[in-house]
Amino acid sequence: MNLNIIPIDPHWLAAAERHQNDLTKPAGSLGRLEIVANRCAAIFGSLTPPVDAARIVVFAADHGVAEEGVSAYPREVTAQMVLNFLNGGAGINALAQAGGIDLAIVDAGVATPLPDAPGLIRHHIGDGTRNFTREPAMTEAEVEEALDAGFAEAEAAVADGFNLLGCGEMGIANTTAAAAIAAALTGRAVSELIGRGTGADDACLARKQSAIECALALHGSHLTTPHEILQRLGGFEIAEMSGFFLGAASLRRPVVVDGFIATAAAALAVGMHPAVRDYMFAAHLSAEPGHAALLEVIGHQPLLDLGMRLGEGTGAALAMKLIQSAVAAFTGMATFSSAGVSNKHP
Amino acid sequence: MNLNIIPIDPHWLAAAERHQNDLTKPAGSLGRLEIVANRCAAIFGSLTPPVDAARIVVFAADHGVAEEGVSAYPREVTAQMVLNFLNGGAGINALAQAGGIDLAIVDAGVATPLPDAPGLIRHHIGDGTRNFTREPAMTEAEVEEALDAGFAEAEAAVADGFNLLGCGEMGIANTTAAAAIAAALTGRAVSELIGRGTGADDACLARKQSAIECALALHGSHLTTPHEILQRLGGFEIAEMSGFFLGAASLRRPVVVDGFIATAAAALAVGMHPAVRDYMFAAHLSAEPGHAALLEVIGHQPLLDLGMRLGEGTGAALAMKLIQSAVAAFTGMATFSSAGVSNKHP
Repeated sequence: MNLNIIPIDPHWLAAAERHQNDLTKPAGSLGRLEIVANRCAAIFGSLTPPVDAARIVVFAADHGVAEEGVSAYPREVTAQMVLNFLNGGAGINALAQAGGIDLAIVDAGVATPLPDAPGLIRHHIGDGTRNFTREPAMTEAEVEEALDAGFAEAEAAVADGFNLLGCGEMGIANTTAAAAIAAALTGRAVSELIGRGTGADDACLARKQSAIECALALHGSHLTTPHEILQRLGGFEIAEMSGFFLGAASLRRPVVVDGFIATAAAALAVGMHPAVRDYMFAAHLSAEPGHAALLEVIGHQPLLDLGMRLGEGTGAALAMKLIQSAVAAFTGMATFSSAGVSNKHP
Repeated sequence: MNLNIIPIDPHWLAAAERHQNDLTKPAGSLGRLEIVANRCAAIFGSLTPPVDAARIVVFAADHGVAEEGVSAYPREVTAQMVLNFLNGGAGINALAQAGGIDLAIVDAGVATPLPDAPGLIRHHIGDGTRNFTREPAMTEAEVEEALDAGFAEAEAAVADGFNLLGCGEMGIANTTAAAAIAAALTGRAVSELIGRGTGADDACLARKQSAIECALALHGSHLTTPHEILQRLGGFEIAEMSGFFLGAASLRRPVVVDGFIATAAAALAVGMHPAVRDYMFAAHLSAEPGHAALLEVIGHQPLLDLGMRLGEGTGAALAMKLIQSAVAAFTGMATFSSAGVSNKHP
């Protein structure tokens, strides 16, 4: 990883704000669209930031903690859904197509063997993580390999000409990993951070809470850095997403953070390099209870709040259109003087 | 107006819900996108509702109450902004273009004479309304003419092949008219319903409150029906938007309600014909304080909350993409059986 993460330049933010106030609208009347466009301008160092070419990378992996019975779905579904992504049948396929967004599918560590398929990118770190209720989910070497792989996917997206990046995930039991990370990062009670994920019943939810509390008891004294939290409680797709965020920021590209699990990865990346957050846009507020706590960690307000909890990058796909629209207004509108429109009463 | 407004069929809602639960996602995991798609299915009576062709109609008019000093901008700005719309320089132009949305611009009653211009549609009811602090804003005949004109624009959009409709507005002082309508419809205190519109200062805001309270005192005993409220407190663009909503519902097309002023028109249309609400989608929550009260009247939760307060249909433009995305997921996703994905543990 060629890390080169610098905070965005406040002078560009100020220049963008001045430009906003010249456009034929009352100052501030486009609300958060203005904030979004101004940050895109600062990221690119340009009053015509290019965000027309968007790609979402979906990272998929399995989790050892699934054997604790924490998910409503069987483990094979991770691989089945990867094939569904490749065949164009999943939610993210439909939303990416509707948004004109390119999609890349990465096997970060799916346990079930996947056939060779056109479009499947292999950054397969292992056949699922280890069960973190008993041992660290990953080795240190696996974490490094996964961070590198995610970083490389951000580089590949930029090399392929994409200027607006996003990522999503698929992994049975990964809301359990994300909630464990949230608990470790925020110190909040596990019961406040867990939800029903893909539809867990009460017994399943109780097993989820117990698995996370057990893991926190086991690893507690080691959970002092983002790297350690990632290694002990994370997942291959989570680590690759963290690397993806680091890559996007290093390459100075806006990057959209999807939902609960992606935000866990984002929070770890911000913990490693705080300036990464300058390049992030929070897509939406997930229906998962722990998401708001993680959004606080990265310090971003979500653009959408639609009660979604699918993952896959589906929230990111919707948010990308808002970001593109925000920039379209910023770059496409006339100014008061050019349009001959009177400004406010003096 | 050939009114033919019937409630949507609950059987179609149920059929759409069943289809949602066959798609390769946990039931309900697309949140409000599912609710949106289901309603589109019920509106069209089809599991493949067509919402690909979208048009926003922007209705512009002036308001007699502007002479009370209730706006931060001079009155000429209404006409100047219409020219800006026609020249492609306004916020709605940029957002419509970004969203692939067709735009129609209507002079509903702009006081400043507008030159003939390609694309300008004339449904000019008068040179601005009368000052409603002294007399009714419109005559009964003007209201009828405006409702008919808005209805005709919905018919024209459908005749032109558009299947997803929306409307927006421009009119200096029209947040004052909308707040007056909100006060008449909800009985809430004027001070809770008014905001700074395009950027009013404290003195301007005080004049706004006083103008509305004065109007309510003058017209109070007459404000018993939506028609009377519209006639006495409304505006030409508001009446035409009310007619547009009635037209969209009569032609069974989904119609997106923009912000504060459009929702005032929507609330009046719902007051006239309650089933109109079945065809409406609330785009966003405006920064104007009275908007939430009007959304309660039409009984819809907004899709977006971005602190916008520009009008013009800008919120509708963003929401249309969400509606199209919701339907794209509904019609484009694979089912569990077709994709070979295991459903939940039994």
